[in-house]
Amino acid sequence: MNVVILAAGMGKRMQSSLPKVLHRLAGKPLLKHVIDTARELSPSRLCVIYGHGGAAVPEMVGQQNTGAFPEILTALQEPQLGTGHAVMQALPQIDENDSTLILYGDVPLTTAASLRKLLEAAGTDKLGILTVEMGNPFGLGRIIRENGRIVRIVEEKDATDAQRQIREINSGILVVPGGKLKQWLGALSNTNAQGEYYLTDIVAQAVAEGVEVVSANPSAEWEVAGVNSKVQLAELERQHQRNIANALLERGVTLMDPDRIDVRGELICGRDVTIDVGCVFEGRVDLADGVTVGAHSVIVNSAIAAGASVKPFCHIEEAVVGAQSLIGPYARLRPGTTLAEDVHIGNFVEVKNSQIAAHTKANHLAYVGDATIGSKVNIGAGTITCNYDGANKFRTVIEDDAFIGSDSQLVAPVTVGKGATLGAGTTLTKDAPAGKLTISRPKQLTIDNWKRPVKTKH
Amino acid sequence: MNVVILAAGMGKRMQSSLPKVLHRLAGKPLLKHVIDTARELSPSRLCVIYGHGGAAVPEMVGQQNTGAFPEILTALQEPQLGTGHAVMQALPQIDENDSTLILYGDVPLTTAASLRKLLEAAGTDKLGILTVEMGNPFGLGRIIRENGRIVRIVEEKDATDAQRQIREINSGILVVPGGKLKQWLGALSNTNAQGEYYLTDIVAQAVAEGVEVVSANPSAEWEVAGVNSKVQLAELERQHQRNIANALLERGVTLMDPDRIDVRGELICGRDVTIDVGCVFEGRVDLADGVTVGAHSVIVNSAIAAGASVKPFCHIEEAVVGAQSLIGPYARLRPGTTLAEDVHIGNFVEVKNSQIAAHTKANHLAYVGDATIGSKVNIGAGTITCNYDGANKFRTVIEDDAFIGSDSQLVAPVTVGKGATLGAGTTLTKDAPAGKLTISRPKQLTIDNWKRPVKTKH
Amino acid sequence: MNVVILAAGMGKRMQSSLPKVLHRLAGKPLLKHVIDTARELSPSRLCVIYGHGGAAVPEMVGQQNTGAFPEILTALQEPQLGTGHAVMQALPQIDENDSTLILYGDVPLTTAASLRKLLEAAGTDKLGILTVEMGNPFGLGRIIRENGRIVRIVEEKDATDAQRQIREINSGILVVPGGKLKQWLGALSNTNAQGEYYLTDIVAQAVAEGVEVVSANPSAEWEVAGVNSKVQLAELERQHQRNIANALLERGVTLMDPDRIDVRGELICGRDVTIDVGCVFEGRVDLADGVTVGAHSVIVNSAIAAGASVKPFCHIEEAVVGAQSLIGPYARLRPGTTLAEDVHIGNFVEVKNSQIAAHTKANHLAYVGDATIGSKVNIGAGTITCNYDGANKFRTVIEDDAFIGSDSQLVAPVTVGKGATLGAGTTLTKDAPAGKLTISRPKQLTIDNWKRPVKTKH
Repeated sequence: MNVVILAAGMGKRMQSSLPKVLHRLAGKPLLKHVIDTARELSPSRLCVIYGHGGAAVPEMVGQQNTGAFPEILTALQEPQLGTGHAVMQALPQIDENDSTLILYGDVPLTTAASLRKLLEAAGTDKLGILTVEMGNPFGLGRIIRENGRIVRIVEEKDATDAQRQIREINSGILVVPGGKLKQWLGALSNTNAQGEYYLTDIVAQAVAEGVEVVSANPSAEWEVAGVNSKVQLAELERQHQRNIANALLERGVTLMDPDRIDVRGELICGRDVTIDVGCVFEGRVDLADGVTVGAHSVIVNSAIAAGASVKPFCHIEEAVVGAQSLIGPYARLRPGTTLAEDVHIGNFVEVKNSQIAAHTKANHLAYVGDATIGSKVNIGAGTITCNYDGANKFRTVIEDDAFIGSDSQLVAPVTVGKGATLGAGTTLTKDAPAGKLTISRPKQLTIDNWKRPVKTKH
Repeated sequence: MNVVILAAGMGKRMQSSLPKVLHRLAGKPLLKHVIDTARELSPSRLCVIYGHGGAAVPEMVGQQNTGAFPEILTALQEPQLGTGHAVMQALPQIDENDSTLILYGDVPLTTAASLRKLLEAAGTDKLGILTVEMGNPFGLGRIIRENGRIVRIVEEKDATDAQRQIREINSGILVVPGGKLKQWLGALSNTNAQGEYYLTDIVAQAVAEGVEVVSANPSAEWEVAGVNSKVQLAELERQHQRNIANALLERGVTLMDPDRIDVRGELICGRDVTIDVGCVFEGRVDLADGVTVGAHSVIVNSAIAAGASVKPFCHIEEAVVGAQSLIGPYARLRPGTTLAEDVHIGNFVEVKNSQIAAHTKANHLAYVGDATIGSKVNIGAGTITCNYDGANKFRTVIEDDAFIGSDSQLVAPVTVGKGATLGAGTTLTKDAPAGKLTISRPKQLTIDNWKRPVKTKH
Repeated sequence: MNVVILAAGMGKRMQSSLPKVLHRLAGKPLLKHVIDTARELSPSRLCVIYGHGGAAVPEMVGQQNTGAFPEILTALQEPQLGTGHAVMQALPQIDENDSTLILYGDVPLTTAASLRKLLEAAGTDKLGILTVEMGNPFGLGRIIRENGRIVRIVEEKDATDAQRQIREINSGILVVPGGKLKQWLGALSNTNAQGEYYLTDIVAQAVAEGVEVVSANPSAEWEVAGVNSKVQLAELERQHQRNIANALLERGVTLMDPDRIDVRGELICGRDVTIDVGCVFEGRVDLADGVTVGAHSVIVNSAIAAGASVKPFCHIEEAVVGAQSLIGPYARLRPGTTLAEDVHIGNFVEVKNSQIAAHTKANHLAYVGDATIGSKVNIGAGTITCNYDGANKFRTVIEDDAFIGSDSQLVAPVTVGKGATLGAGTTLTKDAPAGKLTISRPKQLTIDNWKRPVKTKH
């Protein structure tokens, strides 16, 4: 089977410099949703028709050609003379002896299950149309049936009053039997107001030739909804998020509000996971058994192990959090952070590119960057790893059981030995020996005759 | 009157290790909602039937037996042979001469008012059923009436087409007159597909004996909605939150968005309180007259006095905030914090287990823990109370009118005297005398021939 | 044309100390919405009738008299004897020879477009009523027409069953032709249950005199919805926010969730702006082309230049952010902050009343207040400008290319010269010379025989 995806439209109503099919839904370009669905059907040929937006669309398509799937081909439609004309551009790229499924780069949420139903209905020798009963079919092409058989598609403007009452509409998604596509496309006419070649007109040709026209239905209207404006994009985004939330609930995840979770990628949840309101997940996020995520947290491409608790207002990106760890509130874990079990990262603490072993705590106002930290270490409030000298970055090593006094600066490269203690306010420029107290502390002085400043008059 | 609460079900669709009735709605286990409502009716005996989940349910019930109310009894249903069988297990615990009200541990939102209506309708000698007109009664037992009188309950699968049109359904909540329960339960049969004893079958017995069967209706469908899945739990959570939001609005609270407030406990508001979007309240929270709570704040078991302003992104837990205080944005008040009037706690400041007197300010990036702070104190940015030496915690005392220079560390136990000033960057290890300037400051040096690091080539 | 705005009501159901018309919708008093709309119609006289709330309403009105528009007059209604009586109070302030449009201070969302339609329909010699078809007209005055002409308004309590079926209702918004208002008001009677003078009764007088009564309709019910309770205030707030969100989408802004954005003022967006969930905008906010605003950010009276990225949890108030800058997460920009292009302000950093030149970075836990900072400066983690000595505030100057080591305190007034470096932990009390390293650092010492504290037994 061939799949042709029409993705040449400009999307003027999007009012954007970006081609329409590259706008994102749940963090992924519309066109990529369609490509991913098409690939689930294992087509022998997959061709994307592009047009507006210059190299942006073929570039994005090229990024999908990673070798894991058959290569996606592209064809330029220029000028753009209608959907039929768009499909014509694919002809050199496909095998005309196979069936051809036509999809749309701006219709992102059609499911593979619905397309499989359509392909099965069409078999090898029938024309298949994905049709849907609309609550409000206004403006859409109505499916005209006689004795149950599809005989014609009538556009809104050409419809009689009786035909306008028909609620079954043409989604535009078609499967054309092998050996027919080229012939039918070749017979299309552009003698209409727009001067365009309409793909829909092949239905009449099929009927005229006695080729049976069959249909299948998706599970819901949103499967065939297209995106032509930011209003529609927002509507589909919310629909998709509702679908994701329902799927999470069905799998047993507790969501405090299914209308206030955003999943832009893949969220994998274990058993007894609870997610509070306002959380955003991006990329691939794993939440293991018993994880709780507090309100208004943002988690990107990270894994949180069993029993860990993420408190409100956390921001976690490309990090690994160990089992039973306590994170936040207001903790920021940046890329390259790996926390072992039972690590506590508290409020206003930033961790970057650091490995922290079990039972270590950094509970208050600290910056831990480019550090390797042992187990059972206590990092005092206000501690800063000075990892950057303005030119290069260096690592800090803190060994097991060390105690870092508050407001210390560890000027990397530097090592704090096992069981060492740093006094509060230490500026550590050389290694601190294991088991000993290291300080850098001026004498405390009291100035007797000092007068407080007074408010200057202006 | 007896109350029997059926709470033995496993809740397989919840897909959780926790027994179904212990899942939380608005922060409180489903079963506790039912217990709290039952107690409003002052029953002489209250018995919870448990089964799945081992000791977890009776343990939770035991925690309710604090002496303030008559003891709740429990009875094990093992094996579980239907609702009628469940109620049989309660017989040894109740007084069969009194009426018995049957409630369900997974139907959390029935109001005491509705139950009182039911009890009044039933009096001492009638069988009472809480029935409700459903928009969509599919799957539920229909109430069959003849001349207005209830004569039978017909389950979906046994219903005729005409009966399926009936929208009045059996909620399952019943009150059985004294002296009848044991007899009727004893006559139940389990000759049905499931081999279970259905409590509903006592209705037929009542009718056969000429005992009048009466009904009362709740105010809304959600009062009788049960929780069998996370989808249903989320739906009831949102319904309950909408109810709470409406009640707050009715009492004059300004909510920027009634769909974006979560109250998991008791929120007591004075006059002219305003709550912005995304706030979460847990436990008992008091907001006095004129309090404003900024967007996305989380407040737990705390009291905020009149005129105080909590700005966005605050996290306040077990704290007391004085009148006219300014908190946040991004302020964290932890348990044991007590602020007097007109205290300012600003961004990225954490306060824990500390008392702060009037007009004191800690506006920027500070950690104040285990401290007693006087009035009109200025705590500079970056100040840290070093309250923990790795083994023990100590208190810091700062007396009235002190000025703590930025980035000071106060190594507890230590006292800053009245009107004392600490220079910026002071590490205070001994008490700072009142009225004087105390510093610990190395000499500022400039290194003339120093060269900046250059970027290493890799 | 005259406009009279009735704003004397107490609003008891608001349960507030504030007069009803001063409650805010989208951050602006209800009455100010009505005044702003009225001014779009360029009335020759604009009079606000006040009553309850003492001086608060006329004071707020006075603040609108900035000279940019004709002065708004006020008239006291005391006692309050109905809507007709209220309008009587305006007579001395208006020109009775002109038409008079009657608006309501608690009906905030009527559009100028709808009022223009009404004024056009009424011309100079007809009585015009803004009427609306309601889904549920219960409780509202029905428009009685004969042969299409308005002949009467019937209140709910006086309506026949047939009249109650009428869904066209009187919004209360009227335009009265010149020369008639005084006469008709003078003929009103208060012989009714409330003893009040009803403005609506002038319709009967117009009909009796043969003055044609015409109508116009607003675009939606919410245009004529009044606010009598916090429930209604919240409903209108959400309606208004939905309207704003739709308008932003129509202009091409990408909103991750149109139901989770709050705009309380004016939000001006360039092309390809993306706003994530939970953001709040207050006052005038400009987001230039390509700006992205991360989840849960709050932006007040600020301008964000092209391509800048505001990450989650930012709080920006009266600040200017330069092009391509990266802000947050958890950055707070306070009033008087001006950032040039490509400035990075990172997590837990507060900037106040400071100018920061291009390519400068303050990425971690810092307080920058009252500072002038050059370009390509690196401000280390934990840096604090000590701008306040307890009495006066002073400025810090950091020149281009300086490198401020972590945890430094800059005790203002102080200057760091061009290309100077401060060592980590420096307390800078005197100027740091350009191009050199300045430090204030005690010697690092290790105490050999020191013993760690041990946990005290209690």
